[in-house]
Amino acid sequence: MRDALTEWREPIDREIEQLLPRTITEETLADLFGPPRYEYDTEAIAQALFEPVWDLLDRGGKRWRPVLFLELVDALGEDPEQYLPYATIPEILHTGTIIVDDVEDDATLRRGEEAIHLRYGTDIALNAGNALYFVPLKVISANPGDLDPSQQLGIYEMLTFELNRTHLGQGTDIVWHNESEIDITEAQYLEMSACKTGCLGRIAGRLAALVTDSSDAVEDAFAAYAESLSIAFQIGDDVLDVKHSLDQAGEFGKAFGNDIREGKRTLLVIHALKKADPADRDRLESILTAEEVTDEEIEFVLSILQETDSVEFALETAERLAADARSQLGEVDIDPEVQAELEDFTRYVIERDR
Amino acid sequence: MRDALTEWREPIDREIEQLLPRTITEETLADLFGPPRYEYDTEAIAQALFEPVWDLLDRGGKRWRPVLFLELVDALGEDPEQYLPYATIPEILHTGTIIVDDVEDDATLRRGEEAIHLRYGTDIALNAGNALYFVPLKVISANPGDLDPSQQLGIYEMLTFELNRTHLGQGTDIVWHNESEIDITEAQYLEMSACKTGCLGRIAGRLAALVTDSSDAVEDAFAAYAESLSIAFQIGDDVLDVKHSLDQAGEFGKAFGNDIREGKRTLLVIHALKKADPADRDRLESILTAEEVTDEEIEFVLSILQETDSVEFALETAERLAADARSQLGEVDIDPEVQAELEDFTRYVIERDR
Repeated sequence: MRDALTEWREPIDREIEQLLPRTITEETLADLFGPPRYEYDTEAIAQALFEPVWDLLDRGGKRWRPVLFLELVDALGEDPEQYLPYATIPEILHTGTIIVDDVEDDATLRRGEEAIHLRYGTDIALNAGNALYFVPLKVISANPGDLDPSQQLGIYEMLTFELNRTHLGQGTDIVWHNESEIDITEAQYLEMSACKTGCLGRIAGRLAALVTDSSDAVEDAFAAYAESLSIAFQIGDDVLDVKHSLDQAGEFGKAFGNDIREGKRTLLVIHALKKADPADRDRLESILTAEEVTDEEIEFVLSILQETDSVEFALETAERLAADARSQLGEVDIDPEVQAELEDFTRYVIERDR
Repeated sequence: MRDALTEWREPIDREIEQLLPRTITEETLADLFGPPRYEYDTEAIAQALFEPVWDLLDRGGKRWRPVLFLELVDALGEDPEQYLPYATIPEILHTGTIIVDDVEDDATLRRGEEAIHLRYGTDIALNAGNALYFVPLKVISANPGDLDPSQQLGIYEMLTFELNRTHLGQGTDIVWHNESEIDITEAQYLEMSACKTGCLGRIAGRLAALVTDSSDAVEDAFAAYAESLSIAFQIGDDVLDVKHSLDQAGEFGKAFGNDIREGKRTLLVIHALKKADPADRDRLESILTAEEVTDEEIEFVLSILQETDSVEFALETAERLAADARSQLGEVDIDPEVQAELEDFTRYVIERDR
């Protein structure tokens, strides 16, 4: 899978450029969005949409959802090349959600640079991010791979279902973030993450089953694999943030404890709140809901996370999810070589160091 | 049509409550969005989505797009009752866009009350607004009226097309709003408005043709009718803002000139910029791009709008669009009584006083 990430990178980015050309003219706009009834302001549309989106896309990103889609198609014994344009769907949707999430979360950095809303303005960022919720859907009507109408319909229905749930997850996370008392069960955390993050993975998984006209059993297994993988990936991210913070705490001039500063309700924090003494718990809650957080407070939170074995607990949960993802793949008849790669990927998302 | 707005109000609002119940439980959530894999935080989801959306829906709104859809179905000799759930699609999409637009435009008021992002926070508002881009699409898979798969597919493709163009329009408007030099042609203004506002009207029009399995000619005519009507409606709004401002200017303690304060590039402003003397033009541009605007500056802008006959020019354009809308209806064979109502509505959108 890690080789696949390198190997598919260029073909995926070429497809993204088909969907969203780097430079546009009146003609490309008419090709992409239909002819104008009156007259497009091409320059304004370039500024509003194409510039901010390419700024973000050019900053990198792992493109793991499109690669997952292609690998799953491959696992079913079909030629991924044939369905390459569909790979852009989860990636572009993901790109749209991170632009919008950064506004919602008041984030300052994205992929090591200024967040899009800080560079281009909140208005431009939101509109561009939202546009990306609909741009990739154009792939379905272009119909690469010559799908049956019932398959196309299945893709639209799947996307509607998953994108609705994405907003339930993000909404839940926002409400938690704004609350001063934190009373979240582990099951509620996993559901929030299944919706917020898992749905974009599920889109990649279900799409692979749908374009290949596979059975419902395959679609369900791929969806469950991708969902568990996505949650494990998220927990892996949250663990990394704490590990880096523990490494960097006390080092002069380095920012650390970003998630703590933002008051993120990670699985680690939820576990620590459950296990900590009442007094520590109160201080933890007040730090997580504070506007400004000192380095000393971050170090206090890190010490509580350590005392309550929260990193270990989070890693165990991630490993349970990864094992679940692997067992889901075991339910369906797929190419054993690709299966091994996909199993390997469930380990990588937890063990990676960046 | 004005009678139809009153008559259909309750049935439409009942359908909206089917789609988005006022109170939710674990069971209603599972019915609406599928069962949880782990456990929903029902209270958080109610706060994130249902409360802010119902706050806005309960403030009113004309619901003219759903009524237009129902009237067009009626005009084709079919029973609108049968397709009632589809009427929620343009209304809920519209509700989503105004929540998001108010964030983008930094608006303070909506339907006479605090804008949703000011009352609930930008994060909650954006997520709820965006959720409304996908919630109404659930109607299509529920399949009221028992449509053929090809019709369902047609609806998804139509929505993808129109919602992409909506974001081109909004993006163009944002770029204009942020520019200090204003050089916009009338054709570019009409295109921006056709995209930003017209597309939501077009959705109502095309949906009526699609659910009734009508010809492409009917769909095109309904789309063009609804688009021209929507632009005329928008120009009507902009003219009303100026008329109210002229009435209220100088009256103690009343806010006036809202559009001018916001720096909106209306058709009136674009015309005034073209016709005004160079010195007036410069002052006009600087007022429209200023952060803070005095009452005296508003009065100056109003005087320029009057000198350049901009209200008359805008009304003439709106009347031309209304006539175009009526002629589009004349192209197709529909019930003459409903046709007369729909023609009447094109006059109302310009002549109304609120």
